[in-house]
Amino acid sequence: MKKDKSKLKIIPLGGLEQIGMNMTAFEYEDSIIVVDCGLSFPEDDMLGIDLVIPDITYLKENIDRVKGFFITHGHEDHIGALPYVLKEINAPVYATKLTIGIIENKLTEHDLINTTKRKVVKHGQSINLGAFRVEFIKTNHSIADASALAIYSPAGIIVHTGDFKVDYTPVFGDAIDLQRFAEIGKKGVLALMCDSTNAERKGFTMSERTVGKTFDNIFAEHKNTRIIIATFASNVDRVQQIINSAYKYGRKVVVEGRSMVNIITTAAELGYLDIPNKTLIEIEQMKNYPDEQMVLITTGSQGESMAALSRMAASIHKKVTIKPGDTVIFSSNPIPGNEKAVSKVINELSRQGANVIFQDTHVSGHACQEEIKLIYTLVQPKYAIPVHGEYRHLKAQASVAEDLGIPKDNIFILSSGDVLELDKESAKVTGRVHTGAVLVDGLGVGDVGNIVLRDRQRLAEDGIMTVVLALEKYSNQLLSGPDIISRGFVYVRESEDLMDQCRQVAIEALERCQNKNITEWNKIKNTIRDDLGEFLWKQTKRSPMLLVIIMEV
Amino acid sequence: MKKDKSKLKIIPLGGLEQIGMNMTAFEYEDSIIVVDCGLSFPEDDMLGIDLVIPDITYLKENIDRVKGFFITHGHEDHIGALPYVLKEINAPVYATKLTIGIIENKLTEHDLINTTKRKVVKHGQSINLGAFRVEFIKTNHSIADASALAIYSPAGIIVHTGDFKVDYTPVFGDAIDLQRFAEIGKKGVLALMCDSTNAERKGFTMSERTVGKTFDNIFAEHKNTRIIIATFASNVDRVQQIINSAYKYGRKVVVEGRSMVNIITTAAELGYLDIPNKTLIEIEQMKNYPDEQMVLITTGSQGESMAALSRMAASIHKKVTIKPGDTVIFSSNPIPGNEKAVSKVINELSRQGANVIFQDTHVSGHACQEEIKLIYTLVQPKYAIPVHGEYRHLKAQASVAEDLGIPKDNIFILSSGDVLELDKESAKVTGRVHTGAVLVDGLGVGDVGNIVLRDRQRLAEDGIMTVVLALEKYSNQLLSGPDIISRGFVYVRESEDLMDQCRQVAIEALERCQNKNITEWNKIKNTIRDDLGEFLWKQTKRSPMLLVIIMEV
Repeated sequence: MKKDKSKLKIIPLGGLEQIGMNMTAFEYEDSIIVVDCGLSFPEDDMLGIDLVIPDITYLKENIDRVKGFFITHGHEDHIGALPYVLKEINAPVYATKLTIGIIENKLTEHDLINTTKRKVVKHGQSINLGAFRVEFIKTNHSIADASALAIYSPAGIIVHTGDFKVDYTPVFGDAIDLQRFAEIGKKGVLALMCDSTNAERKGFTMSERTVGKTFDNIFAEHKNTRIIIATFASNVDRVQQIINSAYKYGRKVVVEGRSMVNIITTAAELGYLDIPNKTLIEIEQMKNYPDEQMVLITTGSQGESMAALSRMAASIHKKVTIKPGDTVIFSSNPIPGNEKAVSKVINELSRQGANVIFQDTHVSGHACQEEIKLIYTLVQPKYAIPVHGEYRHLKAQASVAEDLGIPKDNIFILSSGDVLELDKESAKVTGRVHTGAVLVDGLGVGDVGNIVLRDRQRLAEDGIMTVVLALEKYSNQLLSGPDIISRGFVYVRESEDLMDQCRQVAIEALERCQNKNITEWNKIKNTIRDDLGEFLWKQTKRSPMLLVIIMEV
Repeated sequence: MKKDKSKLKIIPLGGLEQIGMNMTAFEYEDSIIVVDCGLSFPEDDMLGIDLVIPDITYLKENIDRVKGFFITHGHEDHIGALPYVLKEINAPVYATKLTIGIIENKLTEHDLINTTKRKVVKHGQSINLGAFRVEFIKTNHSIADASALAIYSPAGIIVHTGDFKVDYTPVFGDAIDLQRFAEIGKKGVLALMCDSTNAERKGFTMSERTVGKTFDNIFAEHKNTRIIIATFASNVDRVQQIINSAYKYGRKVVVEGRSMVNIITTAAELGYLDIPNKTLIEIEQMKNYPDEQMVLITTGSQGESMAALSRMAASIHKKVTIKPGDTVIFSSNPIPGNEKAVSKVINELSRQGANVIFQDTHVSGHACQEEIKLIYTLVQPKYAIPVHGEYRHLKAQASVAEDLGIPKDNIFILSSGDVLELDKESAKVTGRVHTGAVLVDGLGVGDVGNIVLRDRQRLAEDGIMTVVLALEKYSNQLLSGPDIISRGFVYVRESEDLMDQCRQVAIEALERCQNKNITEWNKIKNTIRDDLGEFLWKQTKRSPMLLVIIMEV
């Protein structure tokens, strides 16, 4: 009897406030499984941060119940936090072949390859784990081997799409397994958790193959120039299509950029890339071929300053120099936030005489509204839980779901940390668990928080001024200083007067304290800081960070 | 005879490497006139900088020859540097009525209103100044009273479009004076300097009036909710159309946001806005009207964190709270670089239940390719000098000009500082003058340069660690310290061990110096800095700025 009464808990641990950091716990009695384990890239105000991972306090507190990780596909926003999380929670990882291949590269890098249990799952196959059975369903996305998951629990079936699109003519393998979505829908699905990334866009995302046709046209029109194509490192199908066009037009292919070489190598080894013999050459061999027989596939499509294309554009790439007449194709759209960086690279390339092409050379990997409607219509869920996206995207999907007739009360726009309890009778947010963003900076995981970030923002804005003085231990007599050192505030050589005045302000503040018999060093420090802050604001309308250091001698 | 031999010099002082900072000197013998005097907003790596103005060293060196400033329209990227430049070069300013009105607001703010000579010029009117005659020609743009300039010099006529579009049905006043462009073209034009901002876009920019129709539709569909519309403060015609729709649908209008109130007030005073009686109300009166009778026009369409709409979205606006059901319209496109900030505001608004609309509610103020072709075809210039835009935009216009039959050698993509000498026989870049970007930070103009910026970037990335020690003056004996203080590096309370280790590294470095009889303080400082830098990199993979301060006691 007890079993029938239990509800399923769905607890998003990230991914609902932003693009990235996707991670959701599914809990039924003493079983917890986790779907995806992604990172996100730092927001603009997270100065100096390398990447951001979800706070997994809740999983650590329930570590004994965590049965395993199910990964939908091999993109960073779904796998990137795995090495950090596995160090704390050593549970097995389940995913399709290419996804496991990409994860294994990471595990090797983080020295976790020997301690992490992992299992390759085929589409159509199911994994039994605790109270759950998880079935992998074939979907399409901008990386091969993407999966939706059907999560069978005693409380009902949840369908989680992962990132997906509907591509009837994919470059590699089969189209999304719509029949299986329909079959499971027929059985009765409790909730659908569907990708919201493109939910604001009307219509249907074009097939990946349309990009191949554009490549063919461009190759035909630019027979006499070198062709350089920048795209996402992980878009194996895109690379396949470039290789196809290159082969057709008698060109050799060079792959440049570390992350791209890594993924291409893995994909080729695992059979996800079909490379005709002698088509792929090493970058060192480029000089043996004339420009019109070369295609260079490179990273840097987002204008990342250290990526290969950006270095070529800035003339600091060691092996490739942009030449007048080069045809450079951006096979990508700028991810929001990267527009200016991409534009900078385009300007630099144009300035060196390259012909830059960025129209019709990319399609999205995410479903637009008509595809979302298709999945809802096949799956016929009782509850809708939009996932993957910012609030505006989740809300756009909620509107679509409502248009399809799902009652408003059955649509849940969750926040990370919400505990949604559900079964066939009802669904309700019943509580919250601790979640958050853990910042990774260099080797530090979580040692940079709001205080450090706020300091960095302030330092970035107006720099720092340090005032050092040595005081006699007992008498508080000034033995040395005050010395004034500033960084990032003002060009000191041209501001010697200002620095002299600052020293004077500090001396007067100290004297005022001595006259008032103030001996507590904290008070002296505060007085100097306040006086100096006020003086500088009046003089410059700037507020550098002020650090007053008293040495006791 | 001498006069016939002189050439005209065109010297761009800004505006050719970026959007913004438009300023061009025209020089004929002892006469220099300057067209536009704009600012640009800081790039992402210009941390803490408020705005950027052109370096006018060249004009200062030739101050006696500078006859005046001609301003094409009242946008910041064409007028924003005026208060700074006029402080150094007090020459008269010529512009149309609204443009002068907006400039006067700035002059008042900078206490220059009594010392600056300014003259309102009508479209069709000419100004004789030195060797030049400058005629103002009516154009259309996203601010009223925009002008192209026909600059008559003994060496020939230059047509400078300013920022423009071709709007056959403008909201205020007449369409662009195409007949006059044609007439001047008939006379024979030496060079055309044409707006490149939208030169990559095919087709024709839609009329401003189309936005009015969209507003009418939205007002008709949202009769029962409050309507809030964010747009550019300076887009007077847009505001006019909102007022028209509001009046039609029986709503009162509130204008919110300081910059918008300023410009609307000026525009209304000068007759550029037609506001029906009792339509405009003060924000304090809002409470007297039901939501469905209100329209709020606000700044913040670019997601600027301190603008009115952003404050409403973040629930920190003192007078307006977003309510579920509010209809919020973004009547703008994000300027490249602002996409994420805009998206953040949209998310916040959605989260509070507002219905956010951003489709078909904006048109550009700049000419697309077909309009550019029209102007070239009317003006028939011998030489083409694309202006206003990044390199990619200039190059796109150059392609258009070439397609229209202008020989490649007669098309000049200039850089700021180039001296283009031209007459009817020839045109050639014959030299360069000093140009650059002067950074304005608070009250400081030009006191922040590359060194300070690089320091700010480093501080932003990994913070700063300061090491202070007091040494005995003659013996170099350690009297106090080393004290270690860090900011923006690591959360110190949780890293006490690391700080202790740093102190130890500093002590050991000092002892090593003492053992080697190194007494020079710079060497001691460098040793401590190098050791500590290496230690921190090994421990954390971070490189905070290291400041070693030795106090002599």
